[in-house]
Amino acid sequence: MQEFLLETPVGVSGRHVHLTKEHLQALFGPGYELTKVRDLGQPGEFAAKETVTVVGPKGVLEKVRIIGPLRSYSQVELSRTDCFKLGVNPPVRDSGDHEGSPGCVLVGPAGVVTLNRGVIIALRHIHMHTNDARRYGLKDKDRVNVLVGGERGLIFQNVLVRVHPNYRLEFHVDTDEANACLLNNNDIVQVLAPAAEKVLTMAG
Amino acid sequence: MQEFLLETPVGVSGRHVHLTKEHLQALFGPGYELTKVRDLGQPGEFAAKETVTVVGPKGVLEKVRIIGPLRSYSQVELSRTDCFKLGVNPPVRDSGDHEGSPGCVLVGPAGVVTLNRGVIIALRHIHMHTNDARRYGLKDKDRVNVLVGGERGLIFQNVLVRVHPNYRLEFHVDTDEANACLLNNNDIVQVLAPAAEKVLTMAG
Repeated sequence: MQEFLLETPVGVSGRHVHLTKEHLQALFGPGYELTKVRDLGQPGEFAAKETVTVVGPKGVLEKVRIIGPLRSYSQVELSRTDCFKLGVNPPVRDSGDHEGSPGCVLVGPAGVVTLNRGVIIALRHIHMHTNDARRYGLKDKDRVNVLVGGERGLIFQNVLVRVHPNYRLEFHVDTDEANACLLNNNDIVQVLAPAAEKVLTMAG
Repeated sequence: MQEFLLETPVGVSGRHVHLTKEHLQALFGPGYELTKVRDLGQPGEFAAKETVTVVGPKGVLEKVRIIGPLRSYSQVELSRTDCFKLGVNPPVRDSGDHEGSPGCVLVGPAGVVTLNRGVIIALRHIHMHTNDARRYGLKDKDRVNVLVGGERGLIFQNVLVRVHPNYRLEFHVDTDEANACLLNNNDIVQVLAPAAEKVLTMAG
């Protein structure tokens, strides 16, 4: 039996791209700035109007959304379904951890950028405000389980907890993970302490 | 703690179509017969050389594989990722259970078939030989849990058990489910009795 800790809303991340200022300008032209079309769940993060084409060895993904604001690294976050289409085999990683990750080509209206690395499948994670973490006895980089109910229900294991005073409580999964259990944006799921399950996993 | 029952190999089902004899002939011409290219995990089932185009209100899926042999009903099995592209919202169902399911249009080289229903997202399930079921104390239509290990590990709940003397032990998931936990064909996963977990699910 796993201990119930708290409930959290869900955010489903479709494929998207983060860019550096240098790469944005190479793709869209000198001095170009992103246009916000929608705020996302985490404070400051937004979906931009702009999209790029992502090119891999076996295929192409068109109209891949850029997420702002600009970052100190460029990063392409894909579902494994996308990866098969593109012909890349990236690792499952937390944002910014690009060691050993493959690259790809980005095409924009003003130019092309070749990334040598930065294509990842996002590691599922919970954004948590410092006060929430304290209340539930969790700290940054803890791992928890997440229970999704319903006919296609499942328990996600090894869910990374990220704690920061700027974060708002939200469980982030990609589209493959959401579709495997019929999750939608803003659904509510249950966070469980992983204790008993861990024994089973290690035995396997 | 959930009780470990047995291990099973995995079969990942990509999108595919089952056809009646009538629909095969409407799509490929009178007297047409399927050409086997590969045997599948279950005895008698095979991937055919032939593919069709599946058309929905919002999009198209090209080169969707036909699985033989012919059946007494036509059925289109899609991942939820496919469904968003096609613009359909089918239920999660066991094979042949089409009550309330949407239809679509199938296009072949010799003609077009309009299905009024039969588009489903497959309910994940375990094919099990009668002898295996007896050994592990399971019967047809039981539900079990399935543990997938690894960094993207999870526990699938409500997994349908199908028992038949013609079946070979195999856990069938679709591509969204496989990609959510990085499963590949012939991987080995653990079947668990769902006892303790069920209480938690119902409390949710």
